Amino acid sequence: MNDIKAIRGEMIDCLDDPAVNAHAIRHIKDGLLIIENGHIKAVGDYETLKDHIHYPITHYPHHLIMPGLIDTHIHFPQTEMIAAYGEQLLGWLETYTFPTEKQFADSDYATEIAEFFLDQLLMNGTTTALVFGTVHKNSVDAFFNAALKKQLRMIAGKVLMDRNCPEYLQDDPETGYRDSKALINKWHEKDRLLYAVTPRFAPTSTPAQLTACKQLLDEHPNVYLHTHLSENLDECDWVKSLYPDARDYVDVYDQAGLLTDKTVLAHGIHLSTDEWKAIKSQDSAIAHCPSSNLFMGSGLFNLKTCESHGVKCGMGTDVGAGTSFSLLSTYADAYKVQQLQGNKLSAFKGLYLNTLGGAKALSLDKSIGNFDIGKEADFIAVDTKATELLALRTQKAKDIHDKLFALMMLAESNSVAATYSLGQCVYLRDDRPFKTQAPAMLATA
Amino acid sequence: MNDIKAIRGEMIDCLDDPAVNAHAIRHIKDGLLIIENGHIKAVGDYETLKDHIHYPITHYPHHLIMPGLIDTHIHFPQTEMIAAYGEQLLGWLETYTFPTEKQFADSDYATEIAEFFLDQLLMNGTTTALVFGTVHKNSVDAFFNAALKKQLRMIAGKVLMDRNCPEYLQDDPETGYRDSKALINKWHEKDRLLYAVTPRFAPTSTPAQLTACKQLLDEHPNVYLHTHLSENLDECDWVKSLYPDARDYVDVYDQAGLLTDKTVLAHGIHLSTDEWKAIKSQDSAIAHCPSSNLFMGSGLFNLKTCESHGVKCGMGTDVGAGTSFSLLSTYADAYKVQQLQGNKLSAFKGLYLNTLGGAKALSLDKSIGNFDIGKEADFIAVDTKATELLALRTQKAKDIHDKLFALMMLAESNSVAATYSLGQCVYLRDDRPFKTQAPAMLATA
Repeated sequence: MNDIKAIRGEMIDCLDDPAVNAHAIRHIKDGLLIIENGHIKAVGDYETLKDHIHYPITHYPHHLIMPGLIDTHIHFPQTEMIAAYGEQLLGWLETYTFPTEKQFADSDYATEIAEFFLDQLLMNGTTTALVFGTVHKNSVDAFFNAALKKQLRMIAGKVLMDRNCPEYLQDDPETGYRDSKALINKWHEKDRLLYAVTPRFAPTSTPAQLTACKQLLDEHPNVYLHTHLSENLDECDWVKSLYPDARDYVDVYDQAGLLTDKTVLAHGIHLSTDEWKAIKSQDSAIAHCPSSNLFMGSGLFNLKTCESHGVKCGMGTDVGAGTSFSLLSTYADAYKVQQLQGNKLSAFKGLYLNTLGGAKALSLDKSIGNFDIGKEADFIAVDTKATELLALRTQKAKDIHDKLFALMMLAESNSVAATYSLGQCVYLRDDRPFKTQAPAMLATA
Repeated sequence: MNDIKAIRGEMIDCLDDPAVNAHAIRHIKDGLLIIENGHIKAVGDYETLKDHIHYPITHYPHHLIMPGLIDTHIHFPQTEMIAAYGEQLLGWLETYTFPTEKQFADSDYATEIAEFFLDQLLMNGTTTALVFGTVHKNSVDAFFNAALKKQLRMIAGKVLMDRNCPEYLQDDPETGYRDSKALINKWHEKDRLLYAVTPRFAPTSTPAQLTACKQLLDEHPNVYLHTHLSENLDECDWVKSLYPDARDYVDVYDQAGLLTDKTVLAHGIHLSTDEWKAIKSQDSAIAHCPSSNLFMGSGLFNLKTCESHGVKCGMGTDVGAGTSFSLLSTYADAYKVQQLQGNKLSAFKGLYLNTLGGAKALSLDKSIGNFDIGKEADFIAVDTKATELLALRTQKAKDIHDKLFALMMLAESNSVAATYSLGQCVYLRDDRPFKTQAPAMLATA
């Protein structure tokens, strides 16, 4: 028997990039989403569709229903070190990241954090993410096991790192290759899971290791390549000194054969025109991580330049350097980053980056990213009354753009009322009292 | 009979500016705060003090108790237009601010928003604010009436604006003077309330109106002067063209005699050395509003320069241009603004700006800003377990700085568990269920 359900509410999704298509936004004031066996069977006006269905409807009366959010760059092992003080990229890796990641040699620990991490994603409306593990093979097993239990569409990989890091986090070209290959064979395309070959970034891999990454891509043409690029000026100088034969930072990856149409490069803040062209010519994607870029003082990403080169772009929280798991809040930071450069980043474009744009960046737009018929039913209900301030503000919203903008600018971790993956509700906001109660009265003497 | 109460918990406050004094922070791991008739009678270790008291203790077991936060620049009539899309300062005033402020000619409306606004402040831990009204005299009556009911320490003033604005918001030098004077006589030093003469900014006042402001300051030497300064580059150019005889923007106010030790200038992003020196020589203060500066794309405030000139500085949310009522979150934006300039803004300095620094900027450090004996007992309990992420992160905090930093970086509007003003609990987090419930099931057909 088919599993059929229907969701009613105000709906919004993207059919295309609103920066290039004036009809990119589909907005249904009172919509109905019909789901059959985890996939979208129909979407349209409630009034038009309602007579055709004969089963209960789940109604979100003052919410905005949108596709599940897609985080194109995040580190699950850095969950506990979110908001670590006072460093920019290279010092931050040494001081905080490496000691934290060391703990993931322990599978039980990795499992505990992986489950907490997934709960945070779902609570914040993220249904798909491209995820860094640690160098430890078991960290990725822990992550995929947790994601499999919830049948999520997730992409992850073990870090490859064979130099310029503590010995306790170091692999080598051979072990890195072997562990990655074993993980690919075990997890890639298992249910909805996918694998990404994940060298941390050029400074922590030898050329030999980059060659091993290329071999993995050749042997498994459908896997991803996920790494960092041009985040911080000191990092860029370091890459120049480590790879004197490369024309520029992008060229390090390009020469190694690591730029493909399934390559996702996090950051890309300090890029030359040549570098943008090289990324475009290989159809690789950028993960823009504004919260992280501000928190680490890395710089201001130029989205207009990215758009002008036609490079695919998604949004990333980059937790733990990003300071929120919420892609809605991450849009708020993206807006600020663009404002500082005199650009207006519309809420529609923000929604695109967080949904269909992210899906395209991950080459998953055939499966997820909007409400097109046949796609996997990953979606969320965002509460326009999650706080009294939000209720006041959205009640006065003059149109759907204004409402969406306010919803993202003022988002908090309780903004998402429910998250669905493959048609199943995988998160429902806990509307019980706080577990931590108000002051305890202690009578003394 | 005396009203005595005692609060137990981990405590932190500032005795001085941590940027210049290594012993500026007072941290008590398990502290007791004793309050008599709304003022601080004692503060110290729980173990030391507990035997001297014979009445119930209110215990906050996993909270950080700190002085009430002080917002040195905010607009109460802009509450409903928080997060308004797509403009920088001058367009934002035209498009959003003026039409919104028009509504405050209606006293009932002004009262409704004033009460909502104060609830937002208290929920976010702000116990004192320097507040813009609108041009309408009754807007300030509404605000002060609402603040008086809760016996809060608040400063506010009617906007003075006699040019370059819609006619419906315009006063003139004579009516602006008369209305301000009436408000001063009615409200200044009534209970804990104080008045600020409030020309919006140089472009919207004629020289004649600035002269009238000066007359008000001369006739009432204890009132404040509250205005904007050098927020946006277009604004700066405009000021130059409107005041061709002034040496610079600061000089416009200085020539008019409006810089005093009770003058608070919001923003001050684009200042020359001469301007900094002029501000310092009059002992005026800057209200730094990082959330607003990012949201409006105004620019990056240089806190180091401000410090190097020894200019008093507090923090402002600048709602509605700021995107949060929380000064804790505003610190998070301040941190990012400084990171982009290669400066580390410590959590201790952030606490200072939000408490004692703000009190000094408002010349109120004899009354509020820390837990010194005799001060008014305005304080808050911030919950280290307000979210599961915050609980995980603070549980792993390595010291009090790290804990405070995480608490501010990850703050949300539910972070504050309780707010006290003059020793009375004026806000207690609503730990009941969300009013908005999960999906309603509607059976159809």
